[in-house]
Amino acid sequence: MANETPLTVVGNLTADPELKFTPAGVAMCRFTVASTPRRFDKTTNQWADSDPMFLTCTAWRTAAEHVSESLAKGIRVIVTGRLRQHHWTTDAGEHRSMFGLDVDEVGPSLLFTTATVTRATRGAARTEDPWSTAAPARTGGSANDRTEQGYSEEPPF
Amino acid sequence: MANETPLTVVGNLTADPELKFTPAGVAMCRFTVASTPRRFDKTTNQWADSDPMFLTCTAWRTAAEHVSESLAKGIRVIVTGRLRQHHWTTDAGEHRSMFGLDVDEVGPSLLFTTATVTRATRGAARTEDPWSTAAPARTGGSANDRTEQGYSEEPPF
Amino acid sequence: MANETPLTVVGNLTADPELKFTPAGVAMCRFTVASTPRRFDKTTNQWADSDPMFLTCTAWRTAAEHVSESLAKGIRVIVTGRLRQHHWTTDAGEHRSMFGLDVDEVGPSLLFTTATVTRATRGAARTEDPWSTAAPARTGGSANDRTEQGYSEEPPF
Amino acid sequence: MANETPLTVVGNLTADPELKFTPAGVAMCRFTVASTPRRFDKTTNQWADSDPMFLTCTAWRTAAEHVSESLAKGIRVIVTGRLRQHHWTTDAGEHRSMFGLDVDEVGPSLLFTTATVTRATRGAARTEDPWSTAAPARTGGSANDRTEQGYSEEPPF
Repeated sequence: MANETPLTVVGNLTADPELKFTPAGVAMCRFTVASTPRRFDKTTNQWADSDPMFLTCTAWRTAAEHVSESLAKGIRVIVTGRLRQHHWTTDAGEHRSMFGLDVDEVGPSLLFTTATVTRATRGAARTEDPWSTAAPARTGGSANDRTEQGYSEEPPF
Repeated sequence: MANETPLTVVGNLTADPELKFTPAGVAMCRFTVASTPRRFDKTTNQWADSDPMFLTCTAWRTAAEHVSESLAKGIRVIVTGRLRQHHWTTDAGEHRSMFGLDVDEVGPSLLFTTATVTRATRGAARTEDPWSTAAPARTGGSANDRTEQGYSEEPPF
Repeated sequence: MANETPLTVVGNLTADPELKFTPAGVAMCRFTVASTPRRFDKTTNQWADSDPMFLTCTAWRTAAEHVSESLAKGIRVIVTGRLRQHHWTTDAGEHRSMFGLDVDEVGPSLLFTTATVTRATRGAARTEDPWSTAAPARTGGSANDRTEQGYSEEPPF
Repeated sequence: MANETPLTVVGNLTADPELKFTPAGVAMCRFTVASTPRRFDKTTNQWADSDPMFLTCTAWRTAAEHVSESLAKGIRVIVTGRLRQHHWTTDAGEHRSMFGLDVDEVGPSLLFTTATVTRATRGAARTEDPWSTAAPARTGGSANDRTEQGYSEEPPF
C-alpha cells in the first residue's frame, strides 16, 4: 500500500469486542474507540472535555483473536493503523460514507492499568493462521517472525 | 505544549524496563524499543528486514510504574508520544545529541500475544499520585478521571 | 489541549478554498482534501487505487488567509492537524456526525509542482492579527515569532 | 514497506537545500529541519521555547528537484515520511548512528507565508523521470498520475 493516511488513536472501548469470521474463514474483530480531547480553559484554569470522537476500528487475523480474548468494554487502548473512508449508496440512492481505522497494531494502554502479557500459542490452529505465511496479505510486515520465536533485538552498542 | 512532533513507534523491548525516581520523588521509566521496517523485494518476491531503529522512550508517574510492572525484555509494544532531541556538551567540549520519545501512552501489542488487563489500585499510594490531581504537569490531559472511575463512554447513536 | 488525535493527510483540493469570517471577525478557511490510497496488486503486478478519502479541513487566522491566496482546486497539499468528530441532531431528531481536521499547518506538496514562497507582510492589518499576540488561542505555539522575523535556526554543530 | 514509523515534522530549513545525484543518476536532496516545541509556563503565563530538534530529511527524484528549486534557508516546511536510523562503524571501530527522515512529501507551510504553485513541466527530461513510470521504486504510490494530468477529484455528494 502507498499514499495511506497513518493514524494512532487512544481511547476507551465502547463495548466488548466481537470476533467474527469472513466467508473465507478469516478472523476479524470490529470495535469502537471513544477518544475525548481536553482543552485547558484559561478563564477557569481547568481542563474541560471537548466533543468525544468515536472511531470504528477493524483488526484482522491473530490480532482480531487476541483483541477479543484480551479486551473488554471500558478498557483504554492504543490503536495504530490507517484511516479509511468507506462509501456506499442506500436503497434510496443516497450516498453514505463512514470513517474507520484499519488496525495494524492494538493493545491496552498502561496509563491507568497494569497488564499480564502471555505469548499466544495455539498449536494446530497456527498452521491455518494467515499470519504464519511468509507474506501476509494486508499488514504484512507486522508479522515479525523473529518476535514470534521469542527473539529480542539488542542494540549493537 | 505546542509545535511538538507526535510519533508512534511499534517494536520490541531490548531489555527489562527499570523504574527510577527523580530527586523530587516522581516515578520515571526508560526503555528502548527496537523497530525493524521490512521491505518487499520484488526480485526475490520476499520481505527482507531493513536496518533496525532503536528509540529510547521515557514514561512518567503511574505510566512508568505500570510499565515496570507489566513489560519485560522482548515484549512487543505500541508507544505514542512526542519525538524530542536532547543536546549536551562533553567535557572535551564536543556537542552531542540524542533522539528520544516522551511517552504519552504505552502498552503491549496484541499482534502476537494476549494480555490480561487489571485496573491499578494502590490505596494510600493513590493520594500521593501526581496523576490524581486536576491538572497533571507533563502529559496532563491524558489523565482522564472518568476512565479511572470505570466510566466507559458510549456513542449517542 | 491534550489527548488529541494528531493526523497528517496528503491529497488534492476538491475545490477552490473559500475564506470566511466568524461574527467576531476571525478568518477561517474550509477545504476538502481527496486522498487516494493505492494498493499493489500482486496478481496484476500493478498499483490500483482504493476508495478515496475526503477529509474536510478547517484553517484559522493567517493560515486561512494564506490558504485562500495560495491554493486552488486540484493542487496537492500536505495538511497536519488534529482529527475531530463533530456531532449534531437534525430537526427530525436524528443524530449526525462528521469527521474533520483542525489544521495546524498546511502547504502545497512539491511532489509534482514547484512553488515560489513569499513572506507575508500586511502592514496595518498585522496589528489586528490574532497571531501577533503572545499566546494565540487555538494553535498557539505554532506562531513562532522568530520565524516571522526571518530568523533561521542553525544546529550548534 | 511495512512496519515503518510514519512521522510528520514542521520547522525551518537550516540551510539552502542542495541537489545531488547518485552514481545511477537519481536525484536526491538532503536538508535539515529545525523544529522547536513550545511549552506554556503557568508561573509566567507565557510560552517558552524548549530544546530545538534538528532532523535531517532526504527527498528523492522529482521531489528532490522541486525542493532545491523552491525552498531556501529559513523557510518553514511541512515534511511527512518515515523515521529511520542509520548505523555505521568508524575507522576506530566505534558504533555510530543517526536518525533521519525518508521524505514522502514536503512543502512550504502557509502559516507565515504565501506561495505561488507552478505545475512542473520539464519536456524531454520528463521521459527519463523515474516518477513517470507506473510503479516508482521508493515512495511508489505517491506518484499519482491523475494528479499530474491536472485531474482533481470531487466527492460524489
